[in-house]
Amino acid sequence: MSGISRRKLFGLGAAGVAAAGAGTLAVRSLPGEDATTHAAATSDAVPFYGEHQAGIVTPAQDRLHFVAFDVTTKDRAELVDLLQSWTAAAARMTQGQEAGAFGAVGGVPEAPPDDTGEALGLPASGLTLTIGFGPTLFDERFGLAGRKPKALADLPKFPGDALLPELSGGDLCVQACAHDPQVAVHAIRNLARIGFGRVSVRYSQLGFGRTSSTSRAQATPRNLMGFKDGTANLKLEDTAMLGDHLWVAAEDGADDGADDGADWLTGGSYLVTRKIRMHIETWDRTSLAEQEAIIGRTKGEGAAHGSAKEFDEPDFTRKGPDGESLIADVAHVRLAHPSSHGGVRMLRRGYNFVDGSDGLGRLDAGLFFISYQRDAHRQFVPVQLALARQDVLNEYIKHVSSGLFAVPPGVRDAGDYWGRALFS
Amino acid sequence: MSGISRRKLFGLGAAGVAAAGAGTLAVRSLPGEDATTHAAATSDAVPFYGEHQAGIVTPAQDRLHFVAFDVTTKDRAELVDLLQSWTAAAARMTQGQEAGAFGAVGGVPEAPPDDTGEALGLPASGLTLTIGFGPTLFDERFGLAGRKPKALADLPKFPGDALLPELSGGDLCVQACAHDPQVAVHAIRNLARIGFGRVSVRYSQLGFGRTSSTSRAQATPRNLMGFKDGTANLKLEDTAMLGDHLWVAAEDGADDGADDGADWLTGGSYLVTRKIRMHIETWDRTSLAEQEAIIGRTKGEGAAHGSAKEFDEPDFTRKGPDGESLIADVAHVRLAHPSSHGGVRMLRRGYNFVDGSDGLGRLDAGLFFISYQRDAHRQFVPVQLALARQDVLNEYIKHVSSGLFAVPPGVRDAGDYWGRALFS
Repeated sequence: MSGISRRKLFGLGAAGVAAAGAGTLAVRSLPGEDATTHAAATSDAVPFYGEHQAGIVTPAQDRLHFVAFDVTTKDRAELVDLLQSWTAAAARMTQGQEAGAFGAVGGVPEAPPDDTGEALGLPASGLTLTIGFGPTLFDERFGLAGRKPKALADLPKFPGDALLPELSGGDLCVQACAHDPQVAVHAIRNLARIGFGRVSVRYSQLGFGRTSSTSRAQATPRNLMGFKDGTANLKLEDTAMLGDHLWVAAEDGADDGADDGADWLTGGSYLVTRKIRMHIETWDRTSLAEQEAIIGRTKGEGAAHGSAKEFDEPDFTRKGPDGESLIADVAHVRLAHPSSHGGVRMLRRGYNFVDGSDGLGRLDAGLFFISYQRDAHRQFVPVQLALARQDVLNEYIKHVSSGLFAVPPGVRDAGDYWGRALFS
Repeated sequence: MSGISRRKLFGLGAAGVAAAGAGTLAVRSLPGEDATTHAAATSDAVPFYGEHQAGIVTPAQDRLHFVAFDVTTKDRAELVDLLQSWTAAAARMTQGQEAGAFGAVGGVPEAPPDDTGEALGLPASGLTLTIGFGPTLFDERFGLAGRKPKALADLPKFPGDALLPELSGGDLCVQACAHDPQVAVHAIRNLARIGFGRVSVRYSQLGFGRTSSTSRAQATPRNLMGFKDGTANLKLEDTAMLGDHLWVAAEDGADDGADDGADWLTGGSYLVTRKIRMHIETWDRTSLAEQEAIIGRTKGEGAAHGSAKEFDEPDFTRKGPDGESLIADVAHVRLAHPSSHGGVRMLRRGYNFVDGSDGLGRLDAGLFFISYQRDAHRQFVPVQLALARQDVLNEYIKHVSSGLFAVPPGVRDAGDYWGRALFS
């Protein structure tokens, strides 16, 4: 049935046209709402413009929709146009407004709506949208090969990796975080809609229950192992450390290994994603004492063995009456701790996931690990190598997807766009 | 590596045992929390005991974890023991407490923990757990064939059905709803843990964003089509109608077709689930006027065509200047409306879902439809038949899973359990 015959079928006359006009709302609020409602809708908005992209040191929201895109156009100008349209839509949606009709013919009855509508009436919900550029974006298609930062080299293969190519990589990624999953899903969906014909969704992941805190104002949450996660995480308030460990610094021309990559990335960061499936049924049949020994912390308080409180610095030298270390040599907390890796830190921002079940009577659940750092090869890689080689936790987990993305700096104002320095 | 050698490896002495003891918490709160925190943890608890199960007329929470189980034991006594253990765990978890060690050897260091831990410190979050018994539970295994209600006969095959057997049916189901997905997931996971060796997970579905309101105190939410859903839904406050349309009544012995099933189900209900995949990319490229014509309501306000407000009763007789009905003959609102089906109503309680993407560049998203009714064959079936035959929306959706379950009445007190009347 064609669109025209269907409209005839439905007898769309003046009433239909009027309804279509009324549907083109300037803001994501319903007609007739008063100013109070609208104020509520914007009061929890996170600023979009700034030196760095939001969604990194922003206090971690509770919900995630992460998406990786393949770019399907081969036209550099189309890609730039898409990034401009996306930036404008992101600036609107993060402030609680509709996506807008960027790249489409909106506002007339024959055209698709300017917004998919499922977030109408919902507040901004702390939405942040954070874009990343994958290594494959720098192949021959868009003339970017010369701009690829050294630190965007592929991650090594780690022992035990069971990566699914279709759930890994991607030319572009967008991390949407919000307090309300409907708002995060709405944002990704509208970016995909705006990108129709230029990008296609490679994979997409929903997450709930942040597994790290990125601000000292937040309590440390628990992952699906039931343990507090990310106690030693890099946090918003660690201002001095953010420059050393999180943000890419400007090239200084000296060949001292301190340069982070390309100038266009100054003020940006590197994003690593790892989808880590947990064998939670096996874990759930492991004794509490053994779970705590594997992790190196108590389950209730989250204190390292030999310490009383979660934030007490672990004492890796302390031994029990039997002469053995209280924190085992291969305990997770020891293998992952900054002190085991020359003090390197990451900003972790992962989420729990449950993707239904796996057809074998088990929940398909785990951790969608996300970390931001100045150089993944100097920060994420050594830590993950140690874990992949020695962590007893490997009996209970499997890495099934991996991504590395260069995260450009923030958008300065309405005349700027995601990746402008890269394409200029 | 065996458990014993691993404990040796980790040098577990007195410290490990003490930690294990401390981990056995009586309530789902952390040691050292004050009474204020604990009060907050229980203030949003929904009562578990009552005439009907909670999670039906309970004002719809925002998050869902639905699971269907296959019973793997063939021993009726084991099944009854499981239902008793589950009931006790559900009574605890819905009140913000830990699941407990039902059916396991808890409380000693060698045993698995009494709770998986990821909800430690989280409030009750409005958690409800609602159990249902599928038609297959009444086969020859447990001696229940004579107790199967007539209304638990399989649903007919509807035109266009594309059901996946592995995502349909189930001997048992549990609907977990809560304001926090971590709490809903925790509950289902702990029921699966307690059921180890007696049941296995057949399928499991997460949902976010309730798509119906079950109380007049709730605004009508939007589904992923962007439209308000369930405006005409049966609601908590419709006390008189709940008896006619929702709760199974006692057998009166008369052969008048008014009996609902078996006596053990009095005060219960029937649950229908349908996983409805939406082709949202196609929908998003359809004009607003056409979307509104297909649904029969405006997208912004949700008013039926020819009406001004969402809750104005649709006038299906009104015609436009061109002589055509303002609400098309095949508009969704007309096909699904109670007035088209002799006034039958259902209590709908569905959720949006996004299960990542489908490998073809599209989001795997849609509606996990849930309805409760006194007799699905008299209520759900005629409505769904009309929709399956005529709804233009069928071009944009596909039913991929289906379930029908008999939902027993509520648990009266701590001496009662889910399904006691069935097994007595």
